[in-house]
Amino acid sequence: MGKPVYMDNAATTRVSDEALAAMLPHFTESYGNPSALYDLGQDAFRAVEDARASVAASLGALKSEIFFTSGGTESDNWAVASAAESLGGRGRHVIASAAEHNAVLRPLQRLEGKGFEVTLLPVDREGRVSPEALDSAIRPDTILVSIIAASNVVGTVQDVKRLAAVCRGRKVLFHTDAVQAAGHVPVDVRDWDVDLLSVSAHKFHGPKGAGALFSRIPRLPAPLILGGGQEKGGRSGTENVPGAAGLAAALAAAVRDMPRDSARLSAMRDRIIAGALRIPGVVLTGDPARRLPGHASFVVEGIRHSAHLINMLNGLGICASSGSACSASSREADHVLRALGYGWEPFASLRISLSPYNTDGEADYLLERLPGCVEALRRRDPHSSRFRGAAGGAPGARGRDGAAG
Amino acid sequence: MGKPVYMDNAATTRVSDEALAAMLPHFTESYGNPSALYDLGQDAFRAVEDARASVAASLGALKSEIFFTSGGTESDNWAVASAAESLGGRGRHVIASAAEHNAVLRPLQRLEGKGFEVTLLPVDREGRVSPEALDSAIRPDTILVSIIAASNVVGTVQDVKRLAAVCRGRKVLFHTDAVQAAGHVPVDVRDWDVDLLSVSAHKFHGPKGAGALFSRIPRLPAPLILGGGQEKGGRSGTENVPGAAGLAAALAAAVRDMPRDSARLSAMRDRIIAGALRIPGVVLTGDPARRLPGHASFVVEGIRHSAHLINMLNGLGICASSGSACSASSREADHVLRALGYGWEPFASLRISLSPYNTDGEADYLLERLPGCVEALRRRDPHSSRFRGAAGGAPGARGRDGAAG
Repeated sequence: MGKPVYMDNAATTRVSDEALAAMLPHFTESYGNPSALYDLGQDAFRAVEDARASVAASLGALKSEIFFTSGGTESDNWAVASAAESLGGRGRHVIASAAEHNAVLRPLQRLEGKGFEVTLLPVDREGRVSPEALDSAIRPDTILVSIIAASNVVGTVQDVKRLAAVCRGRKVLFHTDAVQAAGHVPVDVRDWDVDLLSVSAHKFHGPKGAGALFSRIPRLPAPLILGGGQEKGGRSGTENVPGAAGLAAALAAAVRDMPRDSARLSAMRDRIIAGALRIPGVVLTGDPARRLPGHASFVVEGIRHSAHLINMLNGLGICASSGSACSASSREADHVLRALGYGWEPFASLRISLSPYNTDGEADYLLERLPGCVEALRRRDPHSSRFRGAAGGAPGARGRDGAAG
Repeated sequence: MGKPVYMDNAATTRVSDEALAAMLPHFTESYGNPSALYDLGQDAFRAVEDARASVAASLGALKSEIFFTSGGTESDNWAVASAAESLGGRGRHVIASAAEHNAVLRPLQRLEGKGFEVTLLPVDREGRVSPEALDSAIRPDTILVSIIAASNVVGTVQDVKRLAAVCRGRKVLFHTDAVQAAGHVPVDVRDWDVDLLSVSAHKFHGPKGAGALFSRIPRLPAPLILGGGQEKGGRSGTENVPGAAGLAAALAAAVRDMPRDSARLSAMRDRIIAGALRIPGVVLTGDPARRLPGHASFVVEGIRHSAHLINMLNGLGICASSGSACSASSREADHVLRALGYGWEPFASLRISLSPYNTDGEADYLLERLPGCVEALRRRDPHSSRFRGAAGGAPGARGRDGAAG
């Protein structure tokens, strides 16, 4: 089998050689416990602190404001639980958008079971939250607002700066899930003026199992995970030294290469969007202008199951997603698309998310094959008579080994 | 600098070449998201499921009973929080030993703040919990008992089977923190008949940032980390595929090699214990017979700060610990040693924990240098007149490059 055409980089990414090189020494050579007093431990301690300084520099933060976690989901959970635990006495109202990731929504649901009230702000058709609506939703007992910086499902980049400013003006803590944004668009916690921000290494060519939470709260409140008191008591458990080193290296590289990669990926993305929109009944989701550089997302009308389209593309050696990384089979993305107003008729959602590893040849290959896939599926699906025969070309039946590289 | 004499394997271990080999393909080749439908994702899914089956086999569990986490601390936190969250309605009393790791004790303290009552059972001078005392402490409102399987600080291997039997008889959930036990002594969850059991990969030559929780509860209650619904909804967040693969490979190797390694390490441990006890005022801590194969722990009377001894050994190229991996400088081990009845006069705690990488030559080197270190420190410390001149030999002043290998 040949190398697949991997276009699901919003789900996860290949670890870059640079990030892997930063990790490798910490498995078998500098493998000490950062809490240990001897040199091998202190070497590991310095590696974690160097990684922390690097992540801080990449995000415009102070080193003391960066806490390592096991990933974006833990960071999101921590931010939400922490605010509730520490500030619950001051109020029990939390605001988020209806288009948050479940790593924010589900902890909020749990809070509801504990006597908190949660307001989910509507988003517009492009997935944007209105600063005015946010301002109106804030109450005297609001303790936290959490708005996703860039949508995993539809790629929309939120105006975090304006939303954060609303919260600052109303003296309410503001968290943003920047899991899709960090390493892809400029993230500056001072410029954005956010209080809490989550990132995940494996979304920018770092390793799975490593994330970070930025917190500008001087003494970060209420740890989620308690024990030996690592991360200044904020997050216990032996530090994942290779994970921290890999996260830092990957983020630094992404920030360093962003001007070049962002321009190239935006162009490739726009070509894919233009090509896909030539297929009748294919609609772009998310903000056409203000979206992640490598993120192209669609609904394909007249196809009942996204999985059918994903599987057909897989047969052609193309890795794409129905819109969300998690539990693809359970249509995890649906709550976001519903929040944007989709769902009135059968459709398949399709997300193409690029990385610097993708080539123009791969984009050509996708655009060459996509129309035929859509047509074949509509022909198969009794609910799609409206589009029968509207798209041209046959999907063909080639193996993955012929995939463009 | 030469290779250090690494004797702090209870703090963390070198990742074995075998475990690293199991991890490497998942960084840059089979890097898909296990939730994705296409082949690259399904390959990752299978890697996680294969790892789960392997871990289950290593622990005598069913595959469906193994949940991957970010480490032992998260597993412990999860077990405690989960029981409280799910069973809190049935009762609000929890029992643990006074010699638990802080990954259990601190979540219990948090529960106390939420209206739970916690009974900490005393341990004897060797660190053992009495099954009779446990039975007496169980009340109608007891929902969970958590007893550490093997002490990180003093190496005592608990009679988990008898303690679990008491809980089974009284219909109370039993959790054991097996972070130090797994991979070092036989762990069989069916034979032990435990309900919940925590393990951590980096304690048996797997990677940091990877752990597992065994749970025989059919629908594992109350996730600690919520989101995309991975691990059957039990633990959200993109699966750490290389971490799971590394954990499984390391545990399988440890179980496979246990008969050989255990015999060799026990002999080396006993030689180190015998040698150290020849130094006046050095006392073995923990159970002399029923202890972890590679674990030798002592109090060294007449030295006020453990750190001085650790630093002096470090100067000789020897990595040892004061008794606990976490926050060595804050004397994290103290609560355990106090629970065992130590603390009546100045002492340094010293923990030597071996791995199969250690050689007899390294043990010789430690025993050759330790008496001189103890003597030199007692001479430096005004509180230790009692032992002045009692131990022979000078510590010397060699660099780490001369360390035996």
